[in-house]
Amino acid sequence: MNIALIGAGNLATNLAHALTRAGHKILAVYSRTMQSAQVLSERLEQAFPDAEPVTPTDKLESVTHQADIYIIAVRDDVLHDVAANLRSLMPDALIVHTAGTMQMDVIPGKGRGVLYPMQTFSKQRIVRFEEIPVFVEAENDADLTLLKELASTISNNVMAVSGHQRKSLHLAAVFCCNFANHCSAIADFLLDEQGIPFNVMLPLIRETTAKLSQCTPREAQTGPAVREDKKVMDNHVCALEKAGHDDLAQIYRMMSDSIMAFKQKVHIKNS
Amino acid sequence: MNIALIGAGNLATNLAHALTRAGHKILAVYSRTMQSAQVLSERLEQAFPDAEPVTPTDKLESVTHQADIYIIAVRDDVLHDVAANLRSLMPDALIVHTAGTMQMDVIPGKGRGVLYPMQTFSKQRIVRFEEIPVFVEAENDADLTLLKELASTISNNVMAVSGHQRKSLHLAAVFCCNFANHCSAIADFLLDEQGIPFNVMLPLIRETTAKLSQCTPREAQTGPAVREDKKVMDNHVCALEKAGHDDLAQIYRMMSDSIMAFKQKVHIKNS
Repeated sequence: MNIALIGAGNLATNLAHALTRAGHKILAVYSRTMQSAQVLSERLEQAFPDAEPVTPTDKLESVTHQADIYIIAVRDDVLHDVAANLRSLMPDALIVHTAGTMQMDVIPGKGRGVLYPMQTFSKQRIVRFEEIPVFVEAENDADLTLLKELASTISNNVMAVSGHQRKSLHLAAVFCCNFANHCSAIADFLLDEQGIPFNVMLPLIRETTAKLSQCTPREAQTGPAVREDKKVMDNHVCALEKAGHDDLAQIYRMMSDSIMAFKQKVHIKNS
Repeated sequence: MNIALIGAGNLATNLAHALTRAGHKILAVYSRTMQSAQVLSERLEQAFPDAEPVTPTDKLESVTHQADIYIIAVRDDVLHDVAANLRSLMPDALIVHTAGTMQMDVIPGKGRGVLYPMQTFSKQRIVRFEEIPVFVEAENDADLTLLKELASTISNNVMAVSGHQRKSLHLAAVFCCNFANHCSAIADFLLDEQGIPFNVMLPLIRETTAKLSQCTPREAQTGPAVREDKKVMDNHVCALEKAGHDDLAQIYRMMSDSIMAFKQKVHIKNS
């Protein structure tokens, strides 16, 4: 398929590589800044020297009208404006966005849909798309079929979901990925104070992740909170407060309370 | 070495396997309940049919006096009593505990130390010890050398640390492991409400972990909070509150605030 990419950030960069690898043509890359659009275009030309060159632009008006699909991968807070401007230029085009939490109808008109790859993307790290779940939605059946086909060329894990389900997926992903990663950032901060390198934590973090392939997160839980070991918890909170980290002590308390509360939630669900 | 193991829980089970695999002899396993002591003894006999049989007991008085080292792996809240009782029976023995947060001097007498393997242990899942960091401490140099030697037979990553450093390591581990895992438990809970299986999250969780081998947790951070995308954050909090999950909304807010605050902390450290 011929694709125009609106955006040149982490997701756009990874998507562009996956789509080109799957044999699609990226005709154009738009970014608010010409530099970002050029950086992505040049990276693609380096990674795929045999592919046709990509036209970078910082003007929506200059984006080709020849694409089969326009994929918007921009910040959620500018998505509404970008989608409206693009639609006014391309009244009949199939325009999709890639945002977890935004509804499909943030895009005006009827040729619209969503292609949401659920992963944490960085420009520095090009991930393999095959395993990444891609959730699709479209206004009409023909576009949904087309989106499923497109997504299936880059991922083995394509599902059609409602906007409501997609929002829950995104929210769950924020917990699993961003908040879990922040727990590591806090650990890094605490170890740094003691002159201990963060990488001593990596075997523990890897095992924590590996366990989730074998059992549910609740079953996998260990540590003072799930044991309701009040002495250790008080000791930890006290150490954080003494070091002046009242914010981290508050997080410690709240997460521990929630771990203990989840033991009850299991009972309520099971009863 | 000849070893007596005081405890038969998750850590004791994993430690017993690692020590036996490394060629040490577990002479005795003590647990408060005879059943737990027997279960571990039988598992060891099944896993290592050529090793000498282990004597299970639920009476500290029955534990052999022939061991070179007594390793206590019990809950922190009973450690004090168990250590005191054991010392009264073995005035001159080398007794060590395995707890992250407890000070070495919870064990009376002079032949004392700590052997703290930093990992999340389950009885169901016997982990390979080689990569696990093991932190050791002892009252005197001879015992420290002996503990280092013993730990080095099961791990490639042995470090002597102070009690203060060990406490920070344990606290950091609670964040990296228990709290990160609880983020997955919350995600599981939210997806379950939408009829979506938790395993769709596994590629995301694996990538979140994999990134940490290449960059710091702060550098790895993505998502609405680090982008300061207030619209998405408000949307998520609102969705949680509407679903009656005020507790999870509070965690969402606090973690997001902390992610944003950590961007400032970097600036203060760098300036």
